[in-house]
Amino acid sequence: MPTIIAVDIGGTQMRAASYAPDRIKPIKQKKIPTLASTPGGLGRLLHVIEEVWPSDGSVAAIGLGSPGPLDPHTGYLLAPPNNPEWHNFPLAPNVEKHFGVKTYLDNDANLAGLAEYRFGAGRGHHDVLYFTVSTGIGSGVIIRDRLLQGYHGLAAELGHSIIDPNGPLCSCGFNGHLEAFSSGPAIVKYVLGELESGTRSILHRPDKGGRDVNMTARDVAEAAHQGDELAIRAYQRAGEYLGIGVASFLHAFDPSIVIFGGGVSQVGNLLFDSFHESLKKRVFHPRYLEGLVITNAKLGDDAGLLGARALAEMQINL
Amino acid sequence: MPTIIAVDIGGTQMRAASYAPDRIKPIKQKKIPTLASTPGGLGRLLHVIEEVWPSDGSVAAIGLGSPGPLDPHTGYLLAPPNNPEWHNFPLAPNVEKHFGVKTYLDNDANLAGLAEYRFGAGRGHHDVLYFTVSTGIGSGVIIRDRLLQGYHGLAAELGHSIIDPNGPLCSCGFNGHLEAFSSGPAIVKYVLGELESGTRSILHRPDKGGRDVNMTARDVAEAAHQGDELAIRAYQRAGEYLGIGVASFLHAFDPSIVIFGGGVSQVGNLLFDSFHESLKKRVFHPRYLEGLVITNAKLGDDAGLLGARALAEMQINL
Repeated sequence: MPTIIAVDIGGTQMRAASYAPDRIKPIKQKKIPTLASTPGGLGRLLHVIEEVWPSDGSVAAIGLGSPGPLDPHTGYLLAPPNNPEWHNFPLAPNVEKHFGVKTYLDNDANLAGLAEYRFGAGRGHHDVLYFTVSTGIGSGVIIRDRLLQGYHGLAAELGHSIIDPNGPLCSCGFNGHLEAFSSGPAIVKYVLGELESGTRSILHRPDKGGRDVNMTARDVAEAAHQGDELAIRAYQRAGEYLGIGVASFLHAFDPSIVIFGGGVSQVGNLLFDSFHESLKKRVFHPRYLEGLVITNAKLGDDAGLLGARALAEMQINL
Repeated sequence: MPTIIAVDIGGTQMRAASYAPDRIKPIKQKKIPTLASTPGGLGRLLHVIEEVWPSDGSVAAIGLGSPGPLDPHTGYLLAPPNNPEWHNFPLAPNVEKHFGVKTYLDNDANLAGLAEYRFGAGRGHHDVLYFTVSTGIGSGVIIRDRLLQGYHGLAAELGHSIIDPNGPLCSCGFNGHLEAFSSGPAIVKYVLGELESGTRSILHRPDKGGRDVNMTARDVAEAAHQGDELAIRAYQRAGEYLGIGVASFLHAFDPSIVIFGGGVSQVGNLLFDSFHESLKKRVFHPRYLEGLVITNAKLGDDAGLLGARALAEMQINL
């Protein structure tokens, strides 16, 4: 029975699992700290793969997921955050050479999208847009049952679509991206800016000597649930811009389902009431919305692992 | 030998041709006036197809190109401009029934993109973005050798991407689309607005009693070539916004080639100097530009016909 091994290399943990082709549950699984800034990352990765290696010894392919930027065509990491050791690093080729097993790599957002399409909220759909709205906005796109990767392997970076050329600065250093309007840090930044201008709120500006140095999108959500107008407006604004972005993505990709994962998306109506209103107002032909499903991700923390598995299965046509 | 028949149903002319699979030149070709607002359009279409029917009588498939919106999955026209007779009209099914030959339909911009990929500037590429910059901005997208059509058949409407939510009104009635910044009419509208505000130029506002009622993008280009600052700025602005749009499209699709057709794109540096500058400034990772070809369309007026041919060939896997 051809086993697939999948590894989700996250910021804090590396999670590995081995899978039989017909089962969603892993045969074995293991997690270890990533320790991104500590040397020896490849050794830790090889070790955690060995830990989940099946007893019968037969592995058909290995799938790896990691934050980008990376090149899925060559299996190289380009410049992963917080990990100087892995800049321009042949990750998949090294794993492939060590175990003598075909190894594939793609980024965490693409793989979460692929996982939701194969095993989660997107099952049965052929054209899928997936977004994770969190500290950034990642996305994965499936077109007619194939993962969109692009010529350089850098496609589907929809969080870095320019929504307003004069808009706020994105974490990537460029202006006006969707991520700079609708991610968690963007929501916080908007609140801080409004507080700075004197807007009244139960939220308050960070007190450099005190406990409130890091306001989070969750703090803003809690204030909104207590009726704080600024906090409510901050999420409404994020939802409105998310609707503007998704309208353009419907015009571009015309999917049958849009799936939202990530912490910020879990606030529900606080974000999505204004999102839906904005989307309906901005879609330029009503047909895009006919039968369109807009829903939450189903796989939670397992999305990365199941996506790495789906990638390996897809590449060997399992 | 399986012959393909292609028809390009344009605003003023219907052009039909029959093709042998291994030849770019048609076996027979014919054009007749479209007369969109005159009843009997289906009869005229059937007639022009008969005119190019091969002598040996054997046709493998028929491809039709028409302005959208339309549904390539069902072959229905939804609401073609200036043709009330063809609203929600089963065009491909009617042709298929009449001749007993498989018939496929897609919109003119998708097909021009497909034609450039198969026979023109995009040959040898697998991931292609095509734009026609003209009275509107149409686009066609090829991803890993497949035409992007979408769940409702409405994908690749990149001219209707929202570039600035507070931007000018688009021909479709929505605000801030790329087409509202960079199409021919958008360039003219910008000039007229500036003239209204008192900007000096050799161009002048339409004199309702006189000869200048319709300023065209070509008039603006001519003024620019004579050194008129407003005219130059109007094209620079169009190019700048086109660069902003294409930057986002690179992030989304990551193609290996971007092809520009359409009358406005023929002005050359006047539009493309600022386009290139803007694109370089806005692309959020330099890797998107590595090896990226940005070039002009090659097929000119034949793109629609060759695209309809390529569609039919693609659908029957020729």
